[in-house]
Amino acid sequence: MGAPNLSGRQPAFLFDLDGTLVDSVYQHVAAWQEALVECGIPLSVWRIHRRIGMSGGLFITALQRETGLSLDPLTQARLTRLHAERYAQRAGTVAPLPGACELLEVLGQHEVAFAIATSGTLSVATPALALLRVPETVPVITRDQVARAKPDPDLFLAGAERLKVEPARCFVVGDSVWDLLAAKRAGALGIGLLSGGYGQEELQAAGAYRVYEDPADLVEHLEEVGVRPAH
Amino acid sequence: MGAPNLSGRQPAFLFDLDGTLVDSVYQHVAAWQEALVECGIPLSVWRIHRRIGMSGGLFITALQRETGLSLDPLTQARLTRLHAERYAQRAGTVAPLPGACELLEVLGQHEVAFAIATSGTLSVATPALALLRVPETVPVITRDQVARAKPDPDLFLAGAERLKVEPARCFVVGDSVWDLLAAKRAGALGIGLLSGGYGQEELQAAGAYRVYEDPADLVEHLEEVGVRPAH
Repeated sequence: MGAPNLSGRQPAFLFDLDGTLVDSVYQHVAAWQEALVECGIPLSVWRIHRRIGMSGGLFITALQRETGLSLDPLTQARLTRLHAERYAQRAGTVAPLPGACELLEVLGQHEVAFAIATSGTLSVATPALALLRVPETVPVITRDQVARAKPDPDLFLAGAERLKVEPARCFVVGDSVWDLLAAKRAGALGIGLLSGGYGQEELQAAGAYRVYEDPADLVEHLEEVGVRPAH
Repeated sequence: MGAPNLSGRQPAFLFDLDGTLVDSVYQHVAAWQEALVECGIPLSVWRIHRRIGMSGGLFITALQRETGLSLDPLTQARLTRLHAERYAQRAGTVAPLPGACELLEVLGQHEVAFAIATSGTLSVATPALALLRVPETVPVITRDQVARAKPDPDLFLAGAERLKVEPARCFVVGDSVWDLLAAKRAGALGIGLLSGGYGQEELQAAGAYRVYEDPADLVEHLEEVGVRPAH
Protein backbone atom coordinates (compact mmCIF):
# COMPACT_ATOMS: atom_id res chain seq x y z
CA MET A 1 0.00 0.00 0.00
CA GLY A 2 1.57 3.28 -1.06
CA ALA A 3 1.19 6.76 0.34
CA PRO A 4 -1.49 8.90 -1.32
CA ASN A 5 -0.24 9.95 -4.74
CA LEU A 6 -2.58 12.19 -6.67
CA SER A 7 -0.14 14.01 -8.92
CA GLY A 8 -0.61 14.21 -12.65
CA ARG A 9 -3.38 11.96 -13.91
CA GLN A 10 -7.09 12.29 -13.10
CA PRO A 11 -7.94 10.96 -9.62
CA ALA A 12 -10.57 8.29 -9.04
CA PHE A 13 -13.42 8.53 -6.51
CA LEU A 14 -14.88 6.07 -4.03
CA PHE A 15 -18.23 7.30 -2.72
CA ASP A 16 -20.09 6.39 0.40
CA LEU A 17 -23.86 6.32 -0.19
CA ASP A 18 -26.01 7.22 2.88
CA GLY A 19 -25.52 10.87 3.88
CA THR A 20 -23.04 11.38 1.02
CA LEU A 21 -25.13 10.91 -2.13
CA VAL A 22 -28.61 10.36 -0.65
CA ASP A 23 -30.26 12.20 2.26
CA SER A 24 -30.99 9.12 4.36
CA VAL A 25 -29.01 9.43 7.61
CA TYR A 26 -31.87 10.74 9.74
CA GLN A 27 -34.19 8.00 8.47
CA HIS A 28 -31.56 5.43 9.54
CA VAL A 29 -31.35 7.15 12.95
CA ALA A 30 -35.13 7.01 13.42
CA ALA A 31 -35.25 3.36 12.29
CA TRP A 32 -32.55 2.35 14.79
CA GLN A 33 -34.28 4.32 17.53
CA GLU A 34 -37.55 2.47 16.96
CA ALA A 35 -35.76 -0.88 16.79
CA LEU A 36 -33.94 -0.21 20.08
CA VAL A 37 -37.10 0.96 21.86
CA GLU A 38 -38.93 -2.15 20.65
CA CYS A 39 -36.13 -4.31 22.10
CA GLY A 40 -36.27 -2.34 25.37
CA ILE A 41 -32.77 -0.88 24.94
CA PRO A 42 -32.39 2.74 26.06
CA LEU A 43 -29.93 4.83 24.03
CA SER A 44 -29.88 8.59 23.41
CA VAL A 45 -30.61 9.45 19.80
CA TRP A 46 -27.41 11.47 19.28
CA ARG A 47 -25.40 8.36 20.14
CA ILE A 48 -27.25 6.44 17.42
CA HIS A 49 -26.54 9.26 14.95
CA ARG A 50 -22.81 9.09 15.71
CA ARG A 51 -22.79 5.36 14.78
CA ILE A 52 -24.55 5.56 11.40
CA GLY A 53 -22.31 4.44 8.54
CA MET A 54 -20.30 1.95 10.54
CA SER A 55 -20.74 -1.79 10.18
CA GLY A 56 -23.92 -3.13 11.81
CA GLY A 57 -21.83 -5.62 13.78
CA LEU A 58 -19.57 -2.89 15.16
CA PHE A 59 -22.67 -0.76 15.86
CA ILE A 60 -23.94 -3.54 18.11
CA THR A 61 -20.52 -3.91 19.79
CA ALA A 62 -20.49 -0.16 20.51
CA LEU A 63 -24.09 -0.34 21.68
CA GLN A 64 -23.25 -3.03 24.22
CA ARG A 65 -20.39 -0.95 25.57
CA GLU A 66 -22.44 2.26 25.78
CA THR A 67 -25.47 0.65 27.42
CA GLY A 68 -23.55 -1.87 29.54
CA LEU A 69 -25.93 -4.55 28.21
CA SER A 70 -24.92 -7.91 26.82
CA LEU A 71 -27.13 -8.77 23.84
CA ASP A 72 -27.68 -12.43 22.95
CA PRO A 73 -27.44 -13.40 19.26
CA LEU A 74 -31.24 -13.59 18.91
CA THR A 75 -31.68 -10.01 20.13
CA GLN A 76 -28.86 -8.85 17.86
CA ALA A 77 -30.57 -10.48 14.86
CA ARG A 78 -33.92 -9.00 15.89
CA LEU A 79 -32.41 -5.50 16.12
CA THR A 80 -30.89 -5.82 12.64
CA ARG A 81 -34.20 -7.04 11.20
CA LEU A 82 -36.26 -4.34 12.94
CA HIS A 83 -33.90 -1.61 11.72
CA ALA A 84 -34.21 -2.86 8.13
CA GLU A 85 -38.02 -2.98 8.40
CA ARG A 86 -38.37 0.47 9.93
CA TYR A 87 -35.94 1.95 7.42
CA ALA A 88 -37.88 0.40 4.53
CA GLN A 89 -41.03 2.12 5.83
CA ARG A 90 -39.22 5.46 5.50
CA ALA A 91 -37.36 4.81 2.25
CA GLY A 92 -39.99 6.77 0.30
CA THR A 93 -38.89 9.97 2.06
CA VAL A 94 -35.25 9.58 0.96
CA ALA A 95 -34.10 11.94 -1.81
CA PRO A 96 -30.77 12.47 -3.56
CA LEU A 97 -28.70 15.15 -1.83
CA PRO A 98 -28.44 18.44 -3.76
CA GLY A 99 -25.91 18.08 -6.57
CA ALA A 100 -25.48 14.30 -6.20
CA CYS A 101 -26.85 13.34 -9.64
CA GLU A 102 -24.98 16.25 -11.24
CA LEU A 103 -21.72 15.26 -9.52
CA LEU A 104 -21.85 11.72 -10.91
CA GLU A 105 -22.77 13.05 -14.38
CA VAL A 106 -19.90 15.55 -14.41
CA LEU A 107 -17.40 12.89 -13.35
CA GLY A 108 -18.67 10.68 -16.17
CA GLN A 109 -18.28 13.52 -18.68
CA HIS A 110 -14.72 14.12 -17.47
CA GLU A 111 -13.97 10.38 -17.78
CA VAL A 112 -13.21 10.16 -14.07
CA ALA A 113 -13.58 6.63 -12.69
CA PHE A 114 -15.74 6.18 -9.61
CA ALA A 115 -17.30 3.44 -7.51
CA ILE A 116 -19.81 3.38 -4.66
CA ALA A 117 -18.91 1.58 -1.41
CA THR A 118 -21.53 1.37 1.35
CA SER A 119 -21.78 -0.30 4.77
CA GLY A 120 -25.41 -1.03 3.88
CA THR A 121 -26.70 -4.21 2.27
CA LEU A 122 -27.57 -4.47 -1.41
CA SER A 123 -31.29 -4.48 -0.62
CA VAL A 124 -31.00 -1.14 1.23
CA ALA A 125 -28.69 0.34 -1.41
CA THR A 126 -30.69 -0.60 -4.51
CA PRO A 127 -33.49 2.01 -4.21
CA ALA A 128 -30.91 4.73 -3.46
CA LEU A 129 -28.88 3.81 -6.55
CA ALA A 130 -32.05 4.04 -8.65
CA LEU A 131 -32.75 7.54 -7.27
CA LEU A 132 -29.25 8.59 -8.32
CA ARG A 133 -29.58 7.05 -11.81
CA VAL A 134 -26.19 5.34 -11.32
CA PRO A 135 -25.14 3.70 -14.62
CA GLU A 136 -24.84 -0.09 -14.47
CA THR A 137 -21.16 0.17 -15.40
CA VAL A 138 -20.37 1.81 -12.04
CA PRO A 139 -19.00 -0.71 -9.50
CA VAL A 140 -21.11 -0.90 -6.35
CA ILE A 141 -19.64 -2.61 -3.27
CA THR A 142 -22.08 -3.41 -0.47
CA ARG A 143 -21.76 -4.95 2.98
CA ASP A 144 -22.64 -8.36 1.55
CA GLN A 145 -19.46 -8.45 -0.54
CA VAL A 146 -16.72 -7.90 2.02
CA ALA A 147 -15.66 -9.44 5.31
CA ARG A 148 -15.63 -6.19 7.27
CA ALA A 149 -17.44 -2.88 6.81
CA LYS A 150 -16.29 0.61 7.84
CA PRO A 151 -14.19 1.75 9.64
CA ASP A 152 -12.30 -1.26 8.22
CA PRO A 153 -10.91 -0.39 4.78
CA ASP A 154 -12.29 -3.47 2.95
CA LEU A 155 -15.15 -1.69 1.14
CA PHE A 156 -12.91 1.03 -0.27
CA LEU A 157 -10.10 -1.42 -1.13
CA ALA A 158 -12.62 -3.53 -3.05
CA GLY A 159 -13.91 -0.41 -4.83
CA ALA A 160 -10.42 0.59 -5.92
CA GLU A 161 -9.73 -2.94 -7.11
CA ARG A 162 -12.90 -2.98 -9.20
CA LEU A 163 -11.77 0.31 -10.77
CA LYS A 164 -8.28 -1.13 -11.33
CA VAL A 165 -6.82 1.93 -9.60
CA GLU A 166 -4.47 1.95 -6.63
CA PRO A 167 -6.21 3.22 -3.45
CA ALA A 168 -3.45 5.85 -3.21
CA ARG A 169 -4.82 7.41 -6.40
CA CYS A 170 -8.38 7.61 -5.04
CA PHE A 171 -10.36 10.14 -3.07
CA VAL A 172 -12.83 8.61 -0.63
CA VAL A 173 -15.92 10.85 -0.25
CA GLY A 174 -18.00 10.33 2.88
CA ASP A 175 -20.11 12.09 5.51
CA SER A 176 -19.08 10.17 8.62
CA VAL A 177 -15.93 9.77 10.65
CA TRP A 178 -16.10 6.04 9.83
CA ASP A 179 -15.63 6.79 6.13
CA LEU A 180 -12.62 8.98 6.85
CA LEU A 181 -11.02 6.50 9.24
CA ALA A 182 -11.53 3.74 6.66
CA ALA A 183 -10.07 5.98 3.95
CA LYS A 184 -6.87 6.42 5.95
CA ARG A 185 -6.58 2.68 6.51
CA ALA A 186 -7.08 2.14 2.77
CA GLY A 187 -4.25 4.60 2.01
CA ALA A 188 -6.60 7.04 0.28
CA LEU A 189 -7.28 10.72 0.90
CA GLY A 190 -10.69 11.43 2.45
CA ILE A 191 -13.11 14.20 1.50
CA GLY A 192 -15.74 14.92 4.15
CA LEU A 193 -19.26 16.17 3.46
CA LEU A 194 -21.39 17.87 6.13
CA SER A 195 -24.58 16.39 4.67
CA GLY A 196 -24.71 13.51 7.18
CA GLY A 197 -24.89 15.89 10.15
CA TYR A 198 -21.33 15.72 11.51
CA GLY A 199 -19.56 19.03 12.10
CA GLN A 200 -16.64 20.16 9.97
CA GLU A 201 -14.14 19.93 12.82
CA GLU A 202 -15.12 16.33 13.62
CA LEU A 203 -14.49 15.32 10.02
CA GLN A 204 -11.16 17.15 10.00
CA ALA A 205 -10.17 15.46 13.26
CA ALA A 206 -10.94 12.11 11.61
CA GLY A 207 -8.46 12.96 8.87
CA ALA A 208 -10.47 14.72 6.16
CA TYR A 209 -8.19 16.26 3.55
CA ARG A 210 -10.98 18.66 2.54
CA VAL A 211 -14.55 19.25 3.76
CA TYR A 212 -17.47 20.42 1.60
CA GLU A 213 -21.09 21.01 2.54
CA ASP A 214 -22.69 18.47 0.22
CA PRO A 215 -22.32 17.06 -3.34
CA ALA A 216 -23.43 20.41 -4.82
CA ASP A 217 -20.60 22.18 -3.01
CA LEU A 218 -18.08 19.53 -4.12
CA VAL A 219 -19.14 19.71 -7.78
CA GLU A 220 -18.56 23.48 -7.68
CA HIS A 221 -15.02 22.98 -6.37
CA LEU A 222 -13.86 19.91 -8.31
CA GLU A 223 -10.74 21.71 -9.52
CA GLU A 224 -9.56 21.87 -5.91
CA VAL A 225 -9.19 18.08 -5.90
CA GLY A 226 -7.55 17.83 -9.29
CA VAL A 227 -10.47 16.98 -11.59
CA ARG A 228 -9.94 18.43 -15.04
CA PRO A 229 -11.99 18.28 -18.24
CA ALA A 230 -10.91 15.13 -20.09
CA HIS A 231 -10.40 16.82 -23.46
CA MET B 1 -24.26 43.87 32.15
CA GLY B 2 -21.06 42.72 33.86
CA ALA B 3 -18.43 40.23 32.78
CA PRO B 4 -19.00 36.65 33.96
CA ASN B 5 -18.24 36.50 37.68
CA LEU B 6 -18.55 33.08 39.22
CA SER B 7 -16.21 33.38 42.15
CA GLY B 8 -17.22 32.50 45.66
CA ARG B 9 -20.93 31.85 45.99
CA GLN B 10 -22.88 29.01 44.37
CA PRO B 11 -23.57 29.64 40.67
CA ALA B 12 -27.09 29.59 39.20
CA PHE B 13 -28.12 27.61 36.10
CA LEU B 14 -30.27 28.47 33.10
CA PHE B 15 -31.20 25.33 31.17
CA ASP B 16 -32.30 24.92 27.60
CA LEU B 17 -34.90 22.14 27.28
CA ASP B 18 -34.88 20.29 23.90
CA GLY B 19 -31.66 18.30 23.44
CA THR B 20 -30.40 19.47 26.84
CA LEU B 21 -32.83 17.92 29.34
CA VAL B 22 -35.10 15.90 27.02
CA ASP B 23 -34.12 13.76 24.01
CA SER B 24 -36.33 15.53 21.48
CA VAL B 25 -34.07 17.12 18.85
CA TYR B 26 -34.43 14.36 16.26
CA GLN B 27 -38.21 14.39 16.63
CA HIS B 28 -38.16 18.15 15.95
CA VAL B 29 -35.96 17.52 12.90
CA ALA B 30 -38.37 14.90 11.52
CA ALA B 31 -41.37 17.14 12.20
CA TRP B 32 -39.80 20.06 10.32
CA GLN B 33 -38.80 17.77 7.46
CA GLU B 34 -42.39 16.57 7.05
CA ALA B 35 -43.74 20.12 7.28
CA LEU B 36 -41.29 21.34 4.62
CA VAL B 37 -42.04 18.43 2.27
CA GLU B 38 -45.77 19.07 2.67
CA CYS B 39 -45.21 22.71 1.69
CA GLY B 40 -43.09 21.65 -1.29
CA ILE B 41 -39.88 23.18 0.13
CA PRO B 42 -36.73 21.11 -0.49
CA LEU B 43 -34.12 21.31 2.28
CA SER B 44 -31.49 18.73 3.29
CA VAL B 45 -32.18 17.24 6.70
CA TRP B 46 -28.78 18.16 8.18
CA ARG B 47 -29.56 21.82 7.48
CA ILE B 48 -32.79 21.46 9.48
CA HIS B 49 -30.85 19.83 12.34
CA ARG B 50 -28.42 22.75 12.46
CA ARG B 51 -31.34 25.19 12.98
CA ILE B 52 -33.13 23.39 15.84
CA GLY B 53 -33.21 25.49 19.01
CA MET B 54 -33.26 28.85 17.30
CA SER B 55 -36.37 31.02 17.17
CA GLY B 56 -38.99 29.78 14.68
CA GLY B 57 -39.00 33.19 13.00
CA LEU B 58 -35.23 33.16 12.51
CA PHE B 59 -35.50 29.52 11.32
CA ILE B 60 -37.80 30.71 8.55
CA THR B 61 -35.49 33.63 7.70
CA ALA B 62 -32.56 31.21 7.40
CA LEU B 63 -34.72 28.81 5.40
CA GLN B 64 -35.53 31.52 2.87
CA ARG B 65 -31.86 32.35 2.47
CA GLU B 66 -30.78 28.71 2.11
CA THR B 67 -33.49 27.76 -0.37
CA GLY B 68 -33.61 31.07 -2.23
CA LEU B 69 -37.42 31.01 -1.79
CA SER B 70 -39.56 33.86 -0.55
CA LEU B 71 -42.30 32.51 1.69
CA ASP B 72 -45.53 34.47 2.06
CA PRO B 73 -46.97 34.91 5.57
CA LEU B 74 -49.64 32.22 4.98
CA THR B 75 -47.01 29.61 4.08
CA GLN B 76 -44.90 30.65 7.06
CA ALA B 77 -47.89 30.18 9.37
CA ARG B 78 -48.71 26.83 7.73
CA LEU B 79 -45.12 25.61 8.25
CA THR B 80 -45.23 26.57 11.93
CA ARG B 81 -48.59 24.83 12.40
CA LEU B 82 -47.50 21.67 10.52
CA HIS B 83 -44.29 21.42 12.56
CA ALA B 84 -46.26 21.66 15.81
CA GLU B 85 -48.73 18.99 14.63
CA ARG B 86 -46.07 16.57 13.44
CA TYR B 87 -44.02 17.08 16.59
CA ALA B 88 -47.08 16.40 18.75
CA GLN B 89 -47.52 13.07 16.93
CA ARG B 90 -44.00 12.12 18.02
CA ALA B 91 -44.07 13.56 21.55
CA GLY B 92 -44.78 10.10 23.00
CA THR B 93 -41.31 8.94 21.90
CA VAL B 94 -39.52 11.75 23.79
CA ALA B 95 -37.74 10.71 26.99
CA PRO B 96 -35.63 12.59 29.54
CA LEU B 97 -31.94 12.49 28.64
CA PRO B 98 -29.82 10.26 30.90
CA GLY B 99 -29.12 12.05 34.18
CA ALA B 100 -31.54 14.95 33.53
CA CYS B 101 -33.92 14.23 36.42
CA GLU B 102 -30.99 13.46 38.72
CA LEU B 103 -29.21 16.70 37.74
CA LEU B 104 -32.22 18.82 38.68
CA GLU B 105 -32.66 16.89 41.93
CA VAL B 106 -29.00 17.29 42.91
CA LEU B 107 -29.10 21.03 42.20
CA GLY B 108 -32.20 21.28 44.38
CA GLN B 109 -30.47 19.39 47.20
CA HIS B 110 -27.47 21.70 46.95
CA GLU B 111 -29.80 24.75 47.03
CA VAL B 112 -28.58 25.85 43.62
CA ALA B 113 -31.09 28.11 41.84
CA PHE B 114 -32.05 27.16 38.30
CA ALA B 115 -34.56 28.09 35.60
CA ILE B 116 -35.54 26.60 32.25
CA ALA B 117 -35.51 28.81 29.14
CA THR B 118 -36.68 27.34 25.84
CA SER B 119 -37.24 28.66 22.30
CA GLY B 120 -40.31 26.39 22.20
CA THR B 121 -43.83 27.43 23.12
CA LEU B 122 -45.46 26.58 26.45
CA SER B 123 -47.66 23.94 24.77
CA VAL B 124 -44.59 22.10 23.43
CA ALA B 125 -42.66 22.51 26.68
CA THR B 126 -45.37 21.35 29.09
CA PRO B 127 -45.18 17.58 28.41
CA ALA B 128 -41.37 17.71 28.59
CA LEU B 129 -41.48 19.50 31.96
CA ALA B 130 -43.83 16.79 33.25
CA LEU B 131 -41.39 14.07 32.13
CA LEU B 132 -38.64 15.81 34.08
CA ARG B 133 -40.80 16.24 37.20
CA VAL B 134 -39.76 19.91 37.37
CA PRO B 135 -41.07 21.42 40.63
CA GLU B 136 -43.61 24.21 40.15
CA THR B 137 -41.31 26.61 41.95
CA VAL B 138 -38.79 26.47 39.08
CA PRO B 139 -39.16 29.44 36.69
CA VAL B 140 -39.89 28.36 33.13
CA ILE B 141 -39.46 30.91 30.33
CA THR B 142 -40.95 29.96 26.96
CA ARG B 143 -41.03 31.61 23.54
CA ASP B 144 -44.45 33.11 24.34
CA GLN B 145 -42.99 35.26 27.12
CA VAL B 146 -40.21 37.18 25.35
CA ALA B 147 -39.89 39.36 22.27
CA ARG B 148 -37.03 37.40 20.72
CA ALA B 149 -35.88 33.79 21.09
CA LYS B 150 -32.33 32.39 20.74
CA PRO B 151 -29.73 33.36 19.61
CA ASP B 152 -31.06 36.60 21.13
CA PRO B 153 -30.37 36.67 24.86
CA ASP B 154 -33.93 37.54 25.98
CA LEU B 155 -34.88 34.05 27.24
CA PHE B 156 -31.80 33.71 29.41
CA LEU B 157 -32.00 37.31 30.66
CA ALA B 158 -35.62 36.69 31.68
CA GLY B 159 -34.57 33.45 33.42
CA ALA B 160 -31.86 35.22 35.42
CA GLU B 161 -34.30 37.98 36.35
CA ARG B 162 -36.84 35.46 37.61
CA LEU B 163 -34.08 33.90 39.73
CA LYS B 164 -33.06 37.36 40.96
CA VAL B 165 -29.47 36.56 39.97
CA GLU B 166 -27.24 38.57 37.65
CA PRO B 167 -26.66 36.79 34.31
CA ALA B 168 -22.93 37.05 35.00
CA ARG B 169 -23.42 34.66 37.94
CA CYS B 170 -25.22 32.06 35.79
CA PHE B 171 -24.17 29.13 33.68
CA VAL B 172 -26.29 28.61 30.57
CA VAL B 173 -26.53 24.90 29.71
CA GLY B 174 -27.51 24.05 26.13
CA ASP B 175 -26.93 21.61 23.28
CA SER B 176 -26.93 24.00 20.32
CA VAL B 177 -24.73 26.79 19.06
CA TRP B 178 -27.77 29.10 19.43
CA ASP B 179 -27.80 28.52 23.19
CA LEU B 180 -24.11 29.32 23.44
CA LEU B 181 -24.33 32.43 21.26
CA ALA B 182 -27.30 33.63 23.33
CA ALA B 183 -25.35 32.88 26.54
CA LYS B 184 -22.53 35.16 25.41
CA ARG B 185 -24.94 37.95 24.54
CA ALA B 186 -26.53 37.54 27.99
CA GLY B 187 -23.11 37.87 29.65
CA ALA B 188 -23.23 34.32 31.02
CA LEU B 189 -20.83 31.41 30.64
CA GLY B 190 -22.13 28.62 28.40
CA ILE B 191 -21.88 24.88 29.04
CA GLY B 192 -22.40 22.75 25.93
CA LEU B 193 -23.90 19.25 25.89
CA LEU B 194 -23.38 16.83 22.99
CA SER B 195 -26.85 15.35 23.47
CA GLY B 196 -28.44 17.45 20.71
CA GLY B 197 -26.10 16.04 18.05
CA TYR B 198 -23.63 18.90 17.58
CA GLY B 199 -19.94 18.04 17.77
CA GLN B 200 -17.76 19.18 20.65
CA GLU B 201 -15.65 21.47 18.46
CA GLU B 202 -18.72 23.27 17.09
CA LEU B 203 -19.90 24.02 20.60
CA GLN B 204 -16.44 25.20 21.61
CA ALA B 205 -16.27 27.43 18.52
CA ALA B 206 -19.61 28.95 19.57
CA GLY B 207 -18.05 29.89 22.89
CA ALA B 208 -18.70 26.94 25.23
CA TYR B 209 -16.72 27.32 28.45
CA ARG B 210 -16.99 23.54 29.00
CA VAL B 211 -18.56 20.66 27.05
CA TYR B 212 -20.09 17.51 28.55
CA GLU B 213 -21.75 14.56 26.85
CA ASP B 214 -25.19 14.86 28.46
CA PRO B 215 -26.81 15.70 31.82
CA ALA B 216 -25.44 12.47 33.32
CA ASP B 217 -21.91 13.54 32.44
CA LEU B 218 -22.49 17.04 33.83
CA VAL B 219 -23.90 15.76 37.13
CA GLU B 220 -20.75 13.66 37.57
CA HIS B 221 -18.55 16.73 37.11
CA LEU B 222 -20.50 19.43 38.94
CA GLU B 223 -17.49 20.38 41.05
CA GLU B 224 -15.74 21.51 37.83
CA VAL B 225 -18.30 24.33 37.52
CA GLY B 226 -18.22 25.35 41.16
CA VAL B 227 -21.26 23.55 42.58
CA ARG B 228 -20.67 22.58 46.20
CA PRO B 229 -22.84 20.83 48.78
CA ALA B 230 -24.91 23.53 50.49
CA HIS B 231 -24.18 22.39 54.03
